[in-house]
Amino acid sequence: MPVIYNRITLIGLGLIASSMYWSIKRKKLANEVVGYARTHKTREIARKIGLCDRVCETATDAVDGADLVVLCVPVRAMGEVAKTISPALKSYATVSDVGSVKRYVIEQVSEHLPPHVDFVPAHPIAGTEQSGPTSGFAELFENRWCMIVPVEPKNENAIDRLQSFWEAMGSKTVLMNPDHHDLVLAVTSHAPHLIAYTMVGVADDMRRVTDEEVINYSAAGFRDFTRIAASDPIMWRDIFLTNKDATLEILGRFTEELFALQRAIRIGDGNQIQEYLTRTRSIRRGIIEAGQDTSAPNFGRERGSS
Amino acid sequence: MPVIYNRITLIGLGLIASSMYWSIKRKKLANEVVGYARTHKTREIARKIGLCDRVCETATDAVDGADLVVLCVPVRAMGEVAKTISPALKSYATVSDVGSVKRYVIEQVSEHLPPHVDFVPAHPIAGTEQSGPTSGFAELFENRWCMIVPVEPKNENAIDRLQSFWEAMGSKTVLMNPDHHDLVLAVTSHAPHLIAYTMVGVADDMRRVTDEEVINYSAAGFRDFTRIAASDPIMWRDIFLTNKDATLEILGRFTEELFALQRAIRIGDGNQIQEYLTRTRSIRRGIIEAGQDTSAPNFGRERGSS
Repeated sequence: MPVIYNRITLIGLGLIASSMYWSIKRKKLANEVVGYARTHKTREIARKIGLCDRVCETATDAVDGADLVVLCVPVRAMGEVAKTISPALKSYATVSDVGSVKRYVIEQVSEHLPPHVDFVPAHPIAGTEQSGPTSGFAELFENRWCMIVPVEPKNENAIDRLQSFWEAMGSKTVLMNPDHHDLVLAVTSHAPHLIAYTMVGVADDMRRVTDEEVINYSAAGFRDFTRIAASDPIMWRDIFLTNKDATLEILGRFTEELFALQRAIRIGDGNQIQEYLTRTRSIRRGIIEAGQDTSAPNFGRERGSS
Repeated sequence: MPVIYNRITLIGLGLIASSMYWSIKRKKLANEVVGYARTHKTREIARKIGLCDRVCETATDAVDGADLVVLCVPVRAMGEVAKTISPALKSYATVSDVGSVKRYVIEQVSEHLPPHVDFVPAHPIAGTEQSGPTSGFAELFENRWCMIVPVEPKNENAIDRLQSFWEAMGSKTVLMNPDHHDLVLAVTSHAPHLIAYTMVGVADDMRRVTDEEVINYSAAGFRDFTRIAASDPIMWRDIFLTNKDATLEILGRFTEELFALQRAIRIGDGNQIQEYLTRTRSIRRGIIEAGQDTSAPNFGRERGSS
């Protein structure tokens, strides 16, 4: 694979940035990768595990001379970071991000960037429930989609180059506009996460059922919810607050349908329930055929054990 | 392992019964296992794949001479099966079941059974999203809990023996009363399933987001919901209808909490959201420590691929 950017800077060294680093190195997509994290502790861990060729003490030092700067911090921290690094950005550098919300990030970041850099927002649809600098792995983006969300004024070269970069890390890429991105993610990610968090909270709160019972008998379905409800709270707080409208819209539809099903249960309408439950299988099949999940039972969790 | 029952009959040959069969055979827990399924097609598949030592054409033939009869049919079919097999049951036989709802099953089945058999309801907390005679595997019950839910008049010997049987198949067992069972399962299984079905239904219904988008970008969280929403519709219809009160109670609490979080998002109360999201991680940790799930990221789904 040819080098795509001479120097890449990753700001914020969590799951996404660390996975990017390992992937960039494995595929040799840059000559140098520089990192920066807000806390001393994270910078020290990064240095210890060899995450990034260099870890800088300040964000401005880190972006110095970088051809690509990727903001990998929680959504509500992006504006501040953009403001800080702005004076230090090299001419014709590309600034990108990996935030799960796009309209808000574009509003917050764009105003701070100088005219001589290209801002090309992006969002890799990949992740695990784990977070922090030690959670990354080079294969995270393989066969996953990365959405590229161009903003005006468009620089086609900068967009193409960022697309090639993500494709070189194993992703499939697609161009999307910010509002549609935020709606799609509200459906496929933000509402499901809030719902999972809520269900886990309810179980934790039940006085007549102990936490031990919830834990022991979780194999009956509940444990699938707990994986995504173990994701980073700060990151998710920011997502819910900044993709408010789309998330609330989906939650509104969700409660409407849930009420209809609750009513069917209450009045004993077996046909309505069965019809609803039957409809959902084709979506699951589609996800497996598209290679976005495994067809092995229980996601291929080891049988019996663990 | 010593033989625990001379002859076992499995009525209904789906995921649970087929897993029981392979486990019984591997551990040599019975001298003969006889099977029966309602449809000709399922009986033919069972014969073809060697599921059961003998597959009978009628339920009454199947239970003839059995020391243990296990009802593995959907919850609302159990009463009818009990009525059918009742005259053919051997004296001192044990009748059990694997239904996900216990109060209803006990009410429906008890009245049909003759006084000379022991009814010991049970519920193995194990399963996958797959169903049918070909979906079973011997390890399904290993390290999973099986709830034994005794009814009056209690025969301690019959209860002990059934407990030994489930333990021999690799399960941990616990005695529980029917109402508490139904409440615990409403929390850990029935409400989560209904919620997952609903979220998948909402995604499928959105006109502004295509099914293809939902499928492609499902790795953002949504796909975890689709696994349990792929479970057998008839089985789940019956569960919701027969554990109505507990399921509606949990759904009521769930919507209450969901509304509180929706409100926090609407008014931008970041602290309340963050606090809520932080609380749920300990439950996830507990599930992993109890060996009820894997700690590998993404449930240990294969990295990158699938």
